[in-house]
Amino acid sequence: MQSTLETILNHRSIRKFKNTPLTSEQIDTIIDAAQHASTSSYMMAYTIIGITDPAKKEELSRISTQPYVKQNGHLLVFCADLYKPISKASEEEYVKMLPNLENSEHFLVSSIDAALAAQNAALAAESLGLGICFLGSLRNNMGRVDELLHLPKHVIPLFGMAIGVPDHQPEIKPRLPKEAVYFENEYRHPQNEIDAFDEKISAYYQSRSSNQRKDTWSDQMRRRFLKPIRMDVTDTVQQKGFNKR
Amino acid sequence: MQSTLETILNHRSIRKFKNTPLTSEQIDTIIDAAQHASTSSYMMAYTIIGITDPAKKEELSRISTQPYVKQNGHLLVFCADLYKPISKASEEEYVKMLPNLENSEHFLVSSIDAALAAQNAALAAESLGLGICFLGSLRNNMGRVDELLHLPKHVIPLFGMAIGVPDHQPEIKPRLPKEAVYFENEYRHPQNEIDAFDEKISAYYQSRSSNQRKDTWSDQMRRRFLKPIRMDVTDTVQQKGFNKR
Repeated sequence: MQSTLETILNHRSIRKFKNTPLTSEQIDTIIDAAQHASTSSYMMAYTIIGITDPAKKEELSRISTQPYVKQNGHLLVFCADLYKPISKASEEEYVKMLPNLENSEHFLVSSIDAALAAQNAALAAESLGLGICFLGSLRNNMGRVDELLHLPKHVIPLFGMAIGVPDHQPEIKPRLPKEAVYFENEYRHPQNEIDAFDEKISAYYQSRSSNQRKDTWSDQMRRRFLKPIRMDVTDTVQQKGFNKR
Repeated sequence: MQSTLETILNHRSIRKFKNTPLTSEQIDTIIDAAQHASTSSYMMAYTIIGITDPAKKEELSRISTQPYVKQNGHLLVFCADLYKPISKASEEEYVKMLPNLENSEHFLVSSIDAALAAQNAALAAESLGLGICFLGSLRNNMGRVDELLHLPKHVIPLFGMAIGVPDHQPEIKPRLPKEAVYFENEYRHPQNEIDAFDEKISAYYQSRSSNQRKDTWSDQMRRRFLKPIRMDVTDTVQQKGFNKR
């Protein structure tokens, strides 16, 4: 039996899985765990879609450009869902609800609800000896994922999660030092800590067992932020009734 | 030693804490756990602020209207943070980065990063025998929380977390049935499951040990969504450089 802290501290993203499908008991345990997370004002504003259709898995893998979206033990897509909480509203009530459904507050509420549930799912899977990888890469084409899953208005796909029996054992990736993440009472720009981390990560990238390269964290971030990415998410989200006002 | 699944399945939000401050070891364990969560493209796009200043705790408690924001073992505020990843950018680079910093994609990325870290923190605390409560209520005045914590541009407060030794033991709150949360391959409107849940929750509210009332889940959601709430979050977030395009 693995303790909670052991599970948490042992996390590394798994990007290569054995060809062993999850059992329905494993899936049930993972979903049950997800549902036990906190939820804002009892809204339970999320939905999880498990992908078993090989054609859909194939297309989601193409969208993400990652082979492990197709080759895994199971694939989940976590969605923000404001539809279920208001599904019994009359037409007249629905119109009055639009300011809430469409504001940034409820875009946040539903995204955070989905993420809390997903992290419980991840830890439950890991405690069963499985590995996981979050898949923000489904947002490479959020609109197409939305169509594939037949999501109604006020439901959007946020990210996926590949789960399965690990077929590699990557190192645990270093994190920024605690002093750059946790402050007391007010923000402090952690310039020295980021400098030290850049040196540490440079050594890590040059010494790790695979994918060696010369790089720092700040350079990696610089490259990422310089090129506009997923600018279509804004429109897709708004077309689905989120984040409009 | 509590297993991961025991910790997850035993969660209930705690809203009354004993007057016992967390030790610095407990805080370190919780922050370390938070940092081990997955993070999108290695951005680590969040910051955690621990509140020890009694005057700040007092004001945050007033904003949230909840006494347990003041009376607890420790109080954390989780922030979305796109500032650290780009803090070494030149002025010229910064201007080129604005499309990413300001789009909905990175509003999502940073909010989800913060939520994954927070759920790890919650479970770590619970595994130490502590209780927690998420505090979306800090968004009652996100702008004032932002000022109090002296957050720079591209950093916003998302939610708080009260942590401490529980001084009550509420029931675990029922959740929608799995069949209303988990679907295969495509969305399905779970009308029957929501109807059955409304009956169940009505019985729960009438029979629980405190705060008995006559209510259903759908009615509770109807009341909540009919009244516009936190419409100012949209502007505050945009003034801080998030979610503008």
